[in-house]
Parts: sequence; structure tokens; C-alpha cells
Amino acid sequence: MTAAIDFYFDFSSPYGYLAAQAIDDVGARHGIDVAWRPFLLGAVFKITGAQPLPHTPLKDKYAAIDMPRAARLLGVPFTVPEAFPFLSVAACRAYYWLAEDDPARSRDFAKTVFHGAFGEGRDMSVAESVIEEAAKLGVDRETLAAALEEPAVKDRLRREVEAAIERGVFGSPFFFLDDEPFWGHDRLDQVDRWLETGGW
Amino acid sequence: MTAAIDFYFDFSSPYGYLAAQAIDDVGARHGIDVAWRPFLLGAVFKITGAQPLPHTPLKDKYAAIDMPRAARLLGVPFTVPEAFPFLSVAACRAYYWLAEDDPARSRDFAKTVFHGAFGEGRDMSVAESVIEEAAKLGVDRETLAAALEEPAVKDRLRREVEAAIERGVFGSPFFFLDDEPFWGHDRLDQVDRWLETGGW
Repeated sequence: MTAAIDFYFDFSSPYGYLAAQAIDDVGARHGIDVAWRPFLLGAVFKITGAQPLPHTPLKDKYAAIDMPRAARLLGVPFTVPEAFPFLSVAACRAYYWLAEDDPARSRDFAKTVFHGAFGEGRDMSVAESVIEEAAKLGVDRETLAAALEEPAVKDRLRREVEAAIERGVFGSPFFFLDDEPFWGHDRLDQVDRWLETGGW
Repeated sequence: MTAAIDFYFDFSSPYGYLAAQAIDDVGARHGIDVAWRPFLLGAVFKITGAQPLPHTPLKDKYAAIDMPRAARLLGVPFTVPEAFPFLSVAACRAYYWLAEDDPARSRDFAKTVFHGAFGEGRDMSVAESVIEEAAKLGVDRETLAAALEEPAVKDRLRREVEAAIERGVFGSPFFFLDDEPFWGHDRLDQVDRWLETGGW
């Protein structure tokens, strides 16, 4: 039986946002916690040579159709922020800093950042926005603002990104069921089935 | 109601092979014919800057897990030919030449080429293999061998590839339901649902 679900995503990834709407339900159906693991897709793209969707001819036009269509199917709000893709370094650092004391709150934080970006189209790249979202969850603004500049917090994110790449993560969303990798929000049905059957 | 299903694929695409196992059933369920439209992914990659799977770090290792796993789920044989990816120019030319006289036979031919490549791991890049497969369907070898060198046959393929790119096809498999684009064999459930509901 699968012991762990790891959910890798970039906060700037629309398909990561879509997966974020569903993955906890999948885990709950099978009684397994989901570890949310934001990372930086830009670091991966340096290795794979991939480009963000808006910079890829043909694919950009398709994504503009496919992303909102997939969101409508899920029944979730969807918009693309004006600044897209955006740097999610501040959001990632805040996430791992929050996770150290309170994993449940860090997950709530991740959901609110995603909702801000793709539910409401706000600019979540800047530290001010990230701090604002965290404050809604009761986090002290000044403490978080200071934490975002701490070398230990920066190092933590660096290690997480390196570990993701080491594990073979190259896109967002990306899932591991123990050591079994699944890429894409459109693999969620396979993730669900794998958890149901123990694999095939 | 959707009037037409266009199914674009490269004979060298494993995910195209997987989609080919299922797309006719999807069409039949909704009483709609499927137009099979092989094209050359290499021509598209020149525009998008994408690389074949085996040449993409991280993604290559994942594909080696994901492709056979998806095939097992479908219950179809799956192997990767030693020469992969391979040039599918001869197979494409033969397909469109056959399609002019006998669309049903050209589709049978496409299925046998796919099965040769990914069901049995044979080298389907060379004209001899393509001619051999066509001969099994009653096609005269010498007539086909001559046709593969005809300028009109070469032009036909060139036009088909240009039309696919013009339409926005950038991967394999790719589907159009009238003007609605769907990319990837993992969009087949959406294709099925779109045909069922008329869109959402």
C-alpha cells in the first residue's frame, strides 16, 4: 500500500493550481496525507530546455484554450494574472518557513496564494502580496518579512528545489506515490486508481 | 453537435500509438467518423523548439515509466523500437496515397504500422517495412514503392504537415472536434465528454 503522496508544484503553474483543487480529496479518499512541495520550475527548465507556456509557439495558443476549459470542467474559478509566468520565490520561501511550525497552516497558505494568482488574477510574485496572504491566516507580517530574508530560509528552498530535481521532477504538477512518478494534473485519475489498486 | 473528429499523430509517437487504440471506439460511441491525419512531429518541433522525449533530460526517464504504464492500463502491448524516435516520412506518404482510393484500408494500414513499431518494436522508418505492412493488406509492392517517390505523393504529405501546423497542431496525438483542440492521449476522456455534452 502507498504510504505517501508528494505533490510538487510551482505557484506560477496554472495546471499546478488545478491539481491543488483536487489532490487533497484524492488523498482523503484513500486515507493518505498529501505533502505539498512547492518548487521553482525555472530551475528545472534550465535542465530540460523547456520554456514557459507563453513563450512556446503554438502551445501558447492551445494553453489559452485548454487551461480555462479544464478549470470549467472542475468548476473552479480561473484567470491568468497579467504578469505570467511569475517568480514564486517569495511564496515558496514563506511556504517552507510556515511548514516548519505548522504544516496545516502552510497548506492553507499555499491554497490562498494559488487562489490569489489564478482565482483572482493578482500578482503573487512580490513579497508584499505573499505577506498579505499570510497575514490573513494570522501570521505576523514583520516576522515573515524578516524570515524571507534569512539565509536559512533561502537555503531551505534551495535544498527543496535540488531535491525535487534529484528525484526527477520536471514539470508542475508532479506527484510521487512513494517512488512512482506521475506528471500533470491529467494524471490525477491514474493517481487515484494507483492508490485504489496498489498499481498495475 | 460535433460534425468531425480529426486525429493527428506521428507514427513515431508512442502516445499517438496509445490514442490510436482508443479513438475509433470514442468516435463510434458517438456515431462520428474519425479522420486519421498522420503528420511529421519533427517539422513542428522546429517551430516550438521542443525535443523528442529521449533527448530531454528528466522527461526521458519519466517517459520510460509513463508510456508502458499507460499501455498496461489500456491492456495493449507496448515496446519501444531500438531506433526511436524514427522518421515516419515513408509511412505518412504511403498512408495518404492509400487514403486517396480507400480510406478504410489506409486506416488499417496506419494501425498495422503502429502495431509494428510499438506493439512489436520493429523498425518502421524504412520504406521496405512500410511496403511490407501494406502488402499484408493486399497492396501491390511495386506500385507502392513507385508511389513513394512520386512528386505528387511527396507534395501531399508536405501540404498535410503545413495544414496541421497552420491549424495549431504541436504534439502527438492531437485532436480537433470541429475547431476545438485537444492535445494528448490523456485528453481522450475530455474528448469523449465533449462529444457527449456538446462542450462546457
